[in-house]
Amino acid sequence: MAREITGFSNPLIKRVRSLREKKFRKAEGLFLAEGLRILTEAREEGILPEMLFHAGSTHPLAQQLIAAMEAADCDVILTTPDILSKISGKDNAQAVVGVYRDRVTPLERIDRAGADIWIVAQSLRDPGNLGTILRTGDAVGAGGLILVDDCVDPFSVESVRASMGALFTQSITQARWEDFINWLRAGPGQLIGTSLKATHDYQEPAYASPAFLLVGNEAQGLPADYEAQCDLLVKMPMMGKADSLNAAVATAVMAYELLNQKRRA
Amino acid sequence: MAREITGFSNPLIKRVRSLREKKFRKAEGLFLAEGLRILTEAREEGILPEMLFHAGSTHPLAQQLIAAMEAADCDVILTTPDILSKISGKDNAQAVVGVYRDRVTPLERIDRAGADIWIVAQSLRDPGNLGTILRTGDAVGAGGLILVDDCVDPFSVESVRASMGALFTQSITQARWEDFINWLRAGPGQLIGTSLKATHDYQEPAYASPAFLLVGNEAQGLPADYEAQCDLLVKMPMMGKADSLNAAVATAVMAYELLNQKRRA
Repeated sequence: MAREITGFSNPLIKRVRSLREKKFRKAEGLFLAEGLRILTEAREEGILPEMLFHAGSTHPLAQQLIAAMEAADCDVILTTPDILSKISGKDNAQAVVGVYRDRVTPLERIDRAGADIWIVAQSLRDPGNLGTILRTGDAVGAGGLILVDDCVDPFSVESVRASMGALFTQSITQARWEDFINWLRAGPGQLIGTSLKATHDYQEPAYASPAFLLVGNEAQGLPADYEAQCDLLVKMPMMGKADSLNAAVATAVMAYELLNQKRRA
Repeated sequence: MAREITGFSNPLIKRVRSLREKKFRKAEGLFLAEGLRILTEAREEGILPEMLFHAGSTHPLAQQLIAAMEAADCDVILTTPDILSKISGKDNAQAVVGVYRDRVTPLERIDRAGADIWIVAQSLRDPGNLGTILRTGDAVGAGGLILVDDCVDPFSVESVRASMGALFTQSITQARWEDFINWLRAGPGQLIGTSLKATHDYQEPAYASPAFLLVGNEAQGLPADYEAQCDLLVKMPMMGKADSLNAAVATAVMAYELLNQKRRA
């Protein structure tokens, strides 16, 4: 279904723009993703938006998206570049903006045997870090990201952008720590934390599968009692003055070590 | 020299606040760094700010900074929390804000034998990525960061913050590509690029020392003619749908591989 909106005060435009705020995303169960690259990644995963906004782009990827939407009888809205900028909150709007249904996988529906690596983030505060961790998860063949405690919203515009489409390829779960631990201990899975207090270098252990890589808050790291529940605590060598890496960087260095061990096995 | 400023319209406050903009940083050769952790890291490197602003913090690290400034007869300015917020552009100001002289190392003053790893970034656009790469450089014992072409300003508030103090421990160089290549080829040094076109896995080569790790622009990667000038082109395994990693993540995965090879040697 194709239609056209050219009025700034159109209620749908206002509603879509409101999805830049967490409370409206939560209330609607919807989120925004922007740009041909990310929307195409989603389409290739078989995921189409509930609504697609464009300003008449003739780019082949935009045309493919529109065709896929029309074939599925989905809502395609032609609008002006100015309104597209208003929705995306940026002066240079992307060619397309999609409104997607959020997709959270409950703990009990995670197929832990489906991947060798899972990433667990605790109280992650930075949406760029969260999106970057999703992107890294995709790269190392992780199954998904499990968010425990009070993490930043994975469906924020900034997180979606940093994920570069991995938000659509990685499963996303939100859980309380107790629920996560109970679920984890009900099946196979090695919980690996990185900690300044660790005595093992991160390249020392032979990691098991599935491995659950636990990443702590950017400023505080992991709480001591969470560390105590890990099967392994490891640390990366730090040759300089600083005692820690950026959270997304630490996750990637660990995740590639896990992947490299599986590749050698 | 300690003094007090309580007026919002004080010319010094306006001048310091202007350092949030690149043109004023460039004109003055000064930049801002905020927070006890980063300023203490700098102090431990023997680097004191030209001016230190605080709002009467009783934190021991703030007291140590103030004492070091007074011992060196440097400018310590007591101000109000509101003015500190105004300078730092945030509602929750840090306890201390320092104004530092910028520190750029010319190519010809780089001691390439002084470190096994050097990082070279080309047209990097994101200040968070730049700061994170500095932080990773510190962690792997890199000598410094060489910025070629039109990179984002390493002295922006966001870059300084993401570096977590590594801006003070890593040397920073800005150079045109031709000048960098001429300097590089006048001495020992292996130039290693990451590329989608590479045929070698990043764990395959035995890297030489000093290694110069070349990182490309976030969206475009490296220009083809820059890749052609690399001694080695390698790629990280990508197991998912995406074909690339975040620039700071890719740098870290490569940099830890270099470090791990040196650790084993």
